[in-house]
Amino acid sequence: MSDKLSPLAPAQSPVLPDIEGVSCRVARARYKEWDRCDLTFVELAAGTAVAGVLTQSKCPSPEVEYCREALKGGKARGLVVNAGNANAFTGARGMAAVQKILSLTAGHLGCAEQEIFVSSTGVIGVPLPQDKAEAGLKAVFAAEPCSWEEAAATIMTTDTFPKMATTSAIVGGKTVHLSGIIKGSGMIAPDMATMLGYIFTDAAVDAKLLQEMLSAATAKSFNCITVDSDTSTSDTVLAFATGQNSAPALTSFGDNGADAFQAALNDLCMQLAHLVVRDGEGASKFIEIAVTGAESDDSAKRIALSIANSPLVKTAIAGEDANWGRVVMAVGKAGEPADRDRLAISFGGVTVAREGLVVPDYDEAPVAAHLQGSEIDITVDIGLGEGRAMVWTCDLTHGYIEINADYRS
Amino acid sequence: MSDKLSPLAPAQSPVLPDIEGVSCRVARARYKEWDRCDLTFVELAAGTAVAGVLTQSKCPSPEVEYCREALKGGKARGLVVNAGNANAFTGARGMAAVQKILSLTAGHLGCAEQEIFVSSTGVIGVPLPQDKAEAGLKAVFAAEPCSWEEAAATIMTTDTFPKMATTSAIVGGKTVHLSGIIKGSGMIAPDMATMLGYIFTDAAVDAKLLQEMLSAATAKSFNCITVDSDTSTSDTVLAFATGQNSAPALTSFGDNGADAFQAALNDLCMQLAHLVVRDGEGASKFIEIAVTGAESDDSAKRIALSIANSPLVKTAIAGEDANWGRVVMAVGKAGEPADRDRLAISFGGVTVAREGLVVPDYDEAPVAAHLQGSEIDITVDIGLGEGRAMVWTCDLTHGYIEINADYRS
Repeated sequence: MSDKLSPLAPAQSPVLPDIEGVSCRVARARYKEWDRCDLTFVELAAGTAVAGVLTQSKCPSPEVEYCREALKGGKARGLVVNAGNANAFTGARGMAAVQKILSLTAGHLGCAEQEIFVSSTGVIGVPLPQDKAEAGLKAVFAAEPCSWEEAAATIMTTDTFPKMATTSAIVGGKTVHLSGIIKGSGMIAPDMATMLGYIFTDAAVDAKLLQEMLSAATAKSFNCITVDSDTSTSDTVLAFATGQNSAPALTSFGDNGADAFQAALNDLCMQLAHLVVRDGEGASKFIEIAVTGAESDDSAKRIALSIANSPLVKTAIAGEDANWGRVVMAVGKAGEPADRDRLAISFGGVTVAREGLVVPDYDEAPVAAHLQGSEIDITVDIGLGEGRAMVWTCDLTHGYIEINADYRS
Repeated sequence: MSDKLSPLAPAQSPVLPDIEGVSCRVARARYKEWDRCDLTFVELAAGTAVAGVLTQSKCPSPEVEYCREALKGGKARGLVVNAGNANAFTGARGMAAVQKILSLTAGHLGCAEQEIFVSSTGVIGVPLPQDKAEAGLKAVFAAEPCSWEEAAATIMTTDTFPKMATTSAIVGGKTVHLSGIIKGSGMIAPDMATMLGYIFTDAAVDAKLLQEMLSAATAKSFNCITVDSDTSTSDTVLAFATGQNSAPALTSFGDNGADAFQAALNDLCMQLAHLVVRDGEGASKFIEIAVTGAESDDSAKRIALSIANSPLVKTAIAGEDANWGRVVMAVGKAGEPADRDRLAISFGGVTVAREGLVVPDYDEAPVAAHLQGSEIDITVDIGLGEGRAMVWTCDLTHGYIEINADYRS
């Protein structure tokens, strides 16, 4: 946890309503030498449905492997999140720690182990100490319920602010609530990163439908953000639907209210994803990159990510330099169909280059003014087709180096 | 050109012998507001064969497009290199500047335009000023021949030292010489980057064979280095064989001496490639990454580059932190077959992790000592097959941010 608040942090946090069937508790497991809560326990009402999206890393943590299996059951009663130790690349000892947490938590709740979900985040390569986990769980089971903000703060590692979002939807004439907390500020890239996100709703949603909806929302949000192109071994987004709201249950996309719920879920995921970028390690600018005119949406997304991940583009933005040449470079290296002489590039809505050339009488002043702000828009039209995509990233600054050249030691 | 010499620069430059049939000249075209030579002209004897490898960027510079065509002729009489302006993404005006250089230089030498090769490096997006090019060429045609070192210095942009290498081979009992100059320090990644390299030999080598040999040498050298994962629109490596040596001409791989020549060419390319990494923008550590035990050599190379391009690995090395967890992360995100529980990782020859776990009684002291040096070795065994690859990179430091957040403005 950094002392220095990201300059891109929202001026104020939203107030999250209670979600019926969800209660959070936090405690000190002291996974690191720090004096802060680092263990979060969320109790979920019986009958809660669960869906999840997990890292594509070929070397996932035991938690991720476990959650992938447990999700097949589609039911959840509890969530445990450890901060400070990712328990990744820890072999059998890592899995033994997960097993310990499962048995203690399932025992406490009187449910099946498969209904318990576990995540860990922090240093990789050190097995999660079972004694600390056990003591932490005992403390957290005895603790009073806490606020969303305390839970959001307790799952943090290098984050500089707790990240929360909320929205609602009308389903069958009833208002259902969706709220989420998330952590992550480095090692962020599709498909996600040291990003742990948890979404809670009081709506009743069939687990299979919830999974399809979450996957769709993720494709346009969490999988469209990048801080440093690095993908974590532990990425996890879980969505829990307690069904405590009296709105009719959703079981298929055709149900009345399903569209509204999907839209709300999309909105919530986008809010949470943007918060992660706003806390990008060392970030001073929030960058939105829109690519249009590519041969397909997938092609547009690959080009957009090539721009978003380019260290030279990211440092140019940090330097408030309208260096569109570097954008051309990043388009060129994406390996996707592109024609230099059809490219058009804008910064902040001002067209800088068109048809392979700087625009006549290019006036850098409005572009320079845009770049001095903290919200940067880059638009690239490829000029070949109808494919489009949007991605979000941040600039690359001295702050990133400071944080990452001295994180573990 | 930076004031600050890279700490990884070789203590001394090699002395390059004359290559018969090659003469270099330099002049001031003043492509930027600077008082230094920035135009290099190399005259080649009649009968010189040429081969080349060019950027894979989909948005190449006019120079690259032109060279790709001219290489089909296989013959060269002259080379012009402009520093300070890459002339890339400049539309028809960029190509007109190339055409002007071709006609002036071919006129001066009395040869076909197709025998002239042109490269430009520097800012992208600004057409190369034809008047400056013309005045520069007039000056350079009238200049006295210069040293290799002057030529190597004149092609530089953000480089901190001139880069030269030399070697030799025995062909048919005669010693043939191979020398090269290269520039590049950022925007370096496979397939190459703002990297311009020129290799000269007095051997007689058929152009088609020279092309095959250069492509083979490039695959294991220039295409195995990365500074920042960014690929330039202008990457060019050209090899010129003047045939002025009395050694027998090489026309096929079966010829006596062909193996020796290929080995020498490989060696020269590797020397030049390593020099580029040693001048990586902001570099303080030279990092060699060896991957073994992958399913194939290609798979090993992709894993090695995933490690080499990871900002989190590169900042960990900058911070002298044996953070092998980040190496695991980079293996995991490569998307190649890997099994967490078979990975073995070493730093400086000391095994840190084996079979998915930190080694018993891991002693960090020798690893920490290795990381305090400036030459870092990372070895990763995937444990699945026989595939292997080596790549080279540098760390990611504040220096990179300083150079790139304030390059164009």
